Amino acid sequence: MDLSNVKRFLIGEPFPTSQDIHERLDNVRGLAVFASDPISSNAYATEAIMSVIIVLGSGALSMTLPIGLAVAALVILVVFSYIQTILHYPDGGGAYTVSKDNLGRSASLVAGAALLTDYILTVSVSVSAGVRAVTSAFPELFDARLAIALTAILLITWINLRGVRESGTIFAIPTYAFVGGVLLVILIGLVRYFGIFGAAPIPVTPEAVAAEASFNGFAYIWLILRAFAGGCTALTGIEAISNGVQAFKPPESKNAAKTMVAMGIIAMTLFIGITFLSTHLELVPHEYESILSQLTRRITGTGFLYFWVQIFTAMILFMAANTGYQDFPRLSSFLAKDNFLPRWLQNRGDRLVFSAGIVSLAILSSIIVIIFNADEIAMLPLYALGVMLSFSLSQAGMFKLMGRIAHLKPGETMRTSVTEIHFEKDVRWKQALNAVGTVVTSIVFLILVATKFVEGAWIVAMIIPLMVVLFHSIHRHYDKVAAALSTTGMTTENITEVADVVVIPIADVHRGTILAIEYAKRISSDVRALTIITSQEMQDRLDRRWQRFAQITDNVKLITIEYDYRDILKPLVEYIERLNTEEFPDQITTVVVPEFVPESTFEKTLHNQTANRLRARLKQYKDIVIIDVPFHIDSQI
Amino acid sequence: MDLSNVKRFLIGEPFPTSQDIHERLDNVRGLAVFASDPISSNAYATEAIMSVIIVLGSGALSMTLPIGLAVAALVILVVFSYIQTILHYPDGGGAYTVSKDNLGRSASLVAGAALLTDYILTVSVSVSAGVRAVTSAFPELFDARLAIALTAILLITWINLRGVRESGTIFAIPTYAFVGGVLLVILIGLVRYFGIFGAAPIPVTPEAVAAEASFNGFAYIWLILRAFAGGCTALTGIEAISNGVQAFKPPESKNAAKTMVAMGIIAMTLFIGITFLSTHLELVPHEYESILSQLTRRITGTGFLYFWVQIFTAMILFMAANTGYQDFPRLSSFLAKDNFLPRWLQNRGDRLVFSAGIVSLAILSSIIVIIFNADEIAMLPLYALGVMLSFSLSQAGMFKLMGRIAHLKPGETMRTSVTEIHFEKDVRWKQALNAVGTVVTSIVFLILVATKFVEGAWIVAMIIPLMVVLFHSIHRHYDKVAAALSTTGMTTENITEVADVVVIPIADVHRGTILAIEYAKRISSDVRALTIITSQEMQDRLDRRWQRFAQITDNVKLITIEYDYRDILKPLVEYIERLNTEEFPDQITTVVVPEFVPESTFEKTLHNQTANRLRARLKQYKDIVIIDVPFHIDSQI
Repeated sequence: MDLSNVKRFLIGEPFPTSQDIHERLDNVRGLAVFASDPISSNAYATEAIMSVIIVLGSGALSMTLPIGLAVAALVILVVFSYIQTILHYPDGGGAYTVSKDNLGRSASLVAGAALLTDYILTVSVSVSAGVRAVTSAFPELFDARLAIALTAILLITWINLRGVRESGTIFAIPTYAFVGGVLLVILIGLVRYFGIFGAAPIPVTPEAVAAEASFNGFAYIWLILRAFAGGCTALTGIEAISNGVQAFKPPESKNAAKTMVAMGIIAMTLFIGITFLSTHLELVPHEYESILSQLTRRITGTGFLYFWVQIFTAMILFMAANTGYQDFPRLSSFLAKDNFLPRWLQNRGDRLVFSAGIVSLAILSSIIVIIFNADEIAMLPLYALGVMLSFSLSQAGMFKLMGRIAHLKPGETMRTSVTEIHFEKDVRWKQALNAVGTVVTSIVFLILVATKFVEGAWIVAMIIPLMVVLFHSIHRHYDKVAAALSTTGMTTENITEVADVVVIPIADVHRGTILAIEYAKRISSDVRALTIITSQEMQDRLDRRWQRFAQITDNVKLITIEYDYRDILKPLVEYIERLNTEEFPDQITTVVVPEFVPESTFEKTLHNQTANRLRARLKQYKDIVIIDVPFHIDSQI
Repeated sequence: MDLSNVKRFLIGEPFPTSQDIHERLDNVRGLAVFASDPISSNAYATEAIMSVIIVLGSGALSMTLPIGLAVAALVILVVFSYIQTILHYPDGGGAYTVSKDNLGRSASLVAGAALLTDYILTVSVSVSAGVRAVTSAFPELFDARLAIALTAILLITWINLRGVRESGTIFAIPTYAFVGGVLLVILIGLVRYFGIFGAAPIPVTPEAVAAEASFNGFAYIWLILRAFAGGCTALTGIEAISNGVQAFKPPESKNAAKTMVAMGIIAMTLFIGITFLSTHLELVPHEYESILSQLTRRITGTGFLYFWVQIFTAMILFMAANTGYQDFPRLSSFLAKDNFLPRWLQNRGDRLVFSAGIVSLAILSSIIVIIFNADEIAMLPLYALGVMLSFSLSQAGMFKLMGRIAHLKPGETMRTSVTEIHFEKDVRWKQALNAVGTVVTSIVFLILVATKFVEGAWIVAMIIPLMVVLFHSIHRHYDKVAAALSTTGMTTENITEVADVVVIPIADVHRGTILAIEYAKRISSDVRALTIITSQEMQDRLDRRWQRFAQITDNVKLITIEYDYRDILKPLVEYIERLNTEEFPDQITTVVVPEFVPESTFEKTLHNQTANRLRARLKQYKDIVIIDVPFHIDSQI
């Protein structure tokens, strides 16, 4: 029982199921746990726009602000839509539940597959980006990047297995430290930029970059669209809260919605602030220094605040992974509940988290990290597609839901397949916003697919349908099991009869087999000891010992089969099969397997696994019951 | 049963045990199988001497011949000793058996550990050396060297699993091609060197190399000793035949001895021929071209024969690994038979080879190859120590045996612990040769340890004692098991009574559990269905269904335990444990486990492994018998 002590030490004491409610998140922790991904996007979203625009030359960089504002407008649209989702689907499940209720099973499975894929990538990309931040500071660690990335995944997994509240507490510190640091930079920046309180102006030293080529109208628009799509990385993770409404303290949907609003405000303040200042300070994207680093340095110099922002940027990039850890296990449990994923993904562990989902995510994201050798740049073409597809489906679903609500009269209530809807005011307005959201996110999705297809988006485009096929085949399996186990129309006559025969495969007569023979004699009058004879010495020895224990072996038939090969399982199984199908057809045959149980795993490796292999083989036959009569060394001497 | 077809295809049809004798090796194949290692040594043994001597300057290289002759004398001594071993120990087992019979258990275990270590290294070193030959020819494959090495190990493993005779046939071709090629080169070389038939002389163009430093008397002797020790790499593998006498056709020991003589003659002819010509042509060791390659090129030019020798040198270096594949499994089986290694190492597979030993060797040598990244130069300091230690022990053992024979009178016969000895003539002479052999091989062993200790020999010096400790602990375990299973003094009263109670853990009432309940009712009057209740809905559902099948559940107690955690195995096991220790102490409690058996491994992954985990937990308790009542889907609908 050493192992269980190790588990106690690592994971902590188990929580009773009834304590669930105490393990819920307050809004402060909820924001930290779910918003680390969208908030961390501010470390690179502005830069993602600028690095596309720069091919038009540094003069064109002033377009960053209008594009940024368009992204911000889209964020507000999506946030609004998800607040509606949270309020109408208080059990959570986000895009999956919305699609299931409004667009049908196929759409919901596509949304589920898209989001699960993206959450795995969230973990792989964030951790790899965090490792890049570390190896930029300490280049001598570059060769160890894979090991560092896997260790980081292990660490995040461990913290998450300790429970939602505990991980919330741990992750809150760097999230708020990052938000506070960047907000302060923006505030100082604005004060100095507008000369408020007579502050010293910020020096503007633009580096001129010439346009790479001239662009015709179409190419120009394509470039602007790509810059817009780049900026949309700021949207990833916005949906996180809608999947995990039930992680909040009651009233769950109200608290979740409040947290969503807070998240939207914080993320947009940072994004617009950074984009405004970057544009007005005429910053130019640079290979060796991020825009956020340039901005901080220009505004505050290379002092305490600069290092604060740098350190917590690295940390929050790592921790964006945690959004994946929140949502992958929850979303998996929703799919598992609907029989589209293995049912054990619904199981909650000692600390009331979906441990199996957490561990699955850790394994899958580690595989991605290993395949891509912790290079997040190579993973990026696969990333953000899934989430954008789920946005489109979720908005389209909400559009339909609003349409159904619009038909309700004041005071009227209706049950959909998963939730209850009531009469609402201004529902046509909400519907219109959802329509706009659907169209815009669909366009962004198509741009993302088109621009990234060759570099890797095709992988995602293949994996999502394959996952949907997998979901369906899992569902079929569970249907089949349910039908087989169903007791409908079952009577006592249906139950298979038990044959009065017991077979005991033995190789020798010793304490272990004698115990098994005694047990068999208790339950049947026709006990047959079955031996495979591979040499004359073996036959002689067995006969001798069989006679010696005549008192016990009396009334027991000794059946010996001579066999000239070494695979003794084969004749054993063949005899039992014949007995089962010819001598006692349509009846249950009982096989007693005397099994020597070693004290330790080391000792186990010293023995042939004949008993285990025989059991595995016999399990494949219908109507065979296997009785393990274990024999322990220490208990007998 | 798809898997078994794949196995048939890869390994071939199983051989009956009685066919063993037909699978034995004739002498031609026997030589190829066992002698690939000692014969392949000729690819580098002369060079190993010269590369030490060269530090004295190229003028000193003429000393290579006398040192080579000394090595050859030692080889003859050792070959002679092993012929005696083969004749006196016809069951094989080489140094292990000789030590066991004459020097005691500890010495035999040291010999066993030393040889097993060396056989693993033989495989790793040979395969890596073969890969180096390949990557020298195709440098673009250098990055794939680890993959090539592991593939080569897989290939050799596969061929060996197909049977001794088949692998003998495959390995014969390159062995004889190498021997033939080099013999031809030596012959042409001698003809030209001595101007026989008026042959054109070989051009001698010595490169002068100055001595690296001046040497005093002691350092000089040390250097000569090191050169001699280097040349002794020619000895590795000489013992191979003595371990595997029973692989030969009857009369086994006579055929093995003949093959040993042939091997000795071939290996010595090649070694002395190469050494003689290299010295007299004044070749100088060179970083980029081996001595054998220089020799061949000088004598025959860069023509057909040159490439023939080069290609088969690379192949025989690879195949020297096969000597490890012959002897590791055989030696393991000897140790396993004496209970010093897991007994399954005695099992012979479908093709009558020791498959478990072959696979173990493949795994262990792959691990070494991975650790050293297929760099055989780094492995060399660990190599050849073990075999030299086993030579010393074997010669010392034979020395003692000869002493015992010397006491026999003409016609007298005596049984030692493992063999039968008869009166022999000239036995004191044989004993004297063994004494010389013991002293010389011991000195060489000490030189090898001393010169290689820091570079890696210490690892072997640590591993051998650790292995001996492992052998002893395995032996203790089997002693303990034998004592526990022993029926000495056993009476019918000793047999544990079976309690009239059956526990069935159930989660629901369905076709699977109903079958289990019916089975349990047949064997006991006190059947208890045990359920862990985690929610009120579960309780209600169970009660409802339990009532519905009153006809079946009649007389069966339904025991429900409310539990506020998710780990339901814990209360299940606790209840059964209490029942077993308090209600029915010192009696056997029966637990029926209804188990759903999925059709495929994929389906298996979709289900909780509750039944399997419960069985594993219950097996730890003494006096609990587990009955698996399997439930198949397809068989019921």
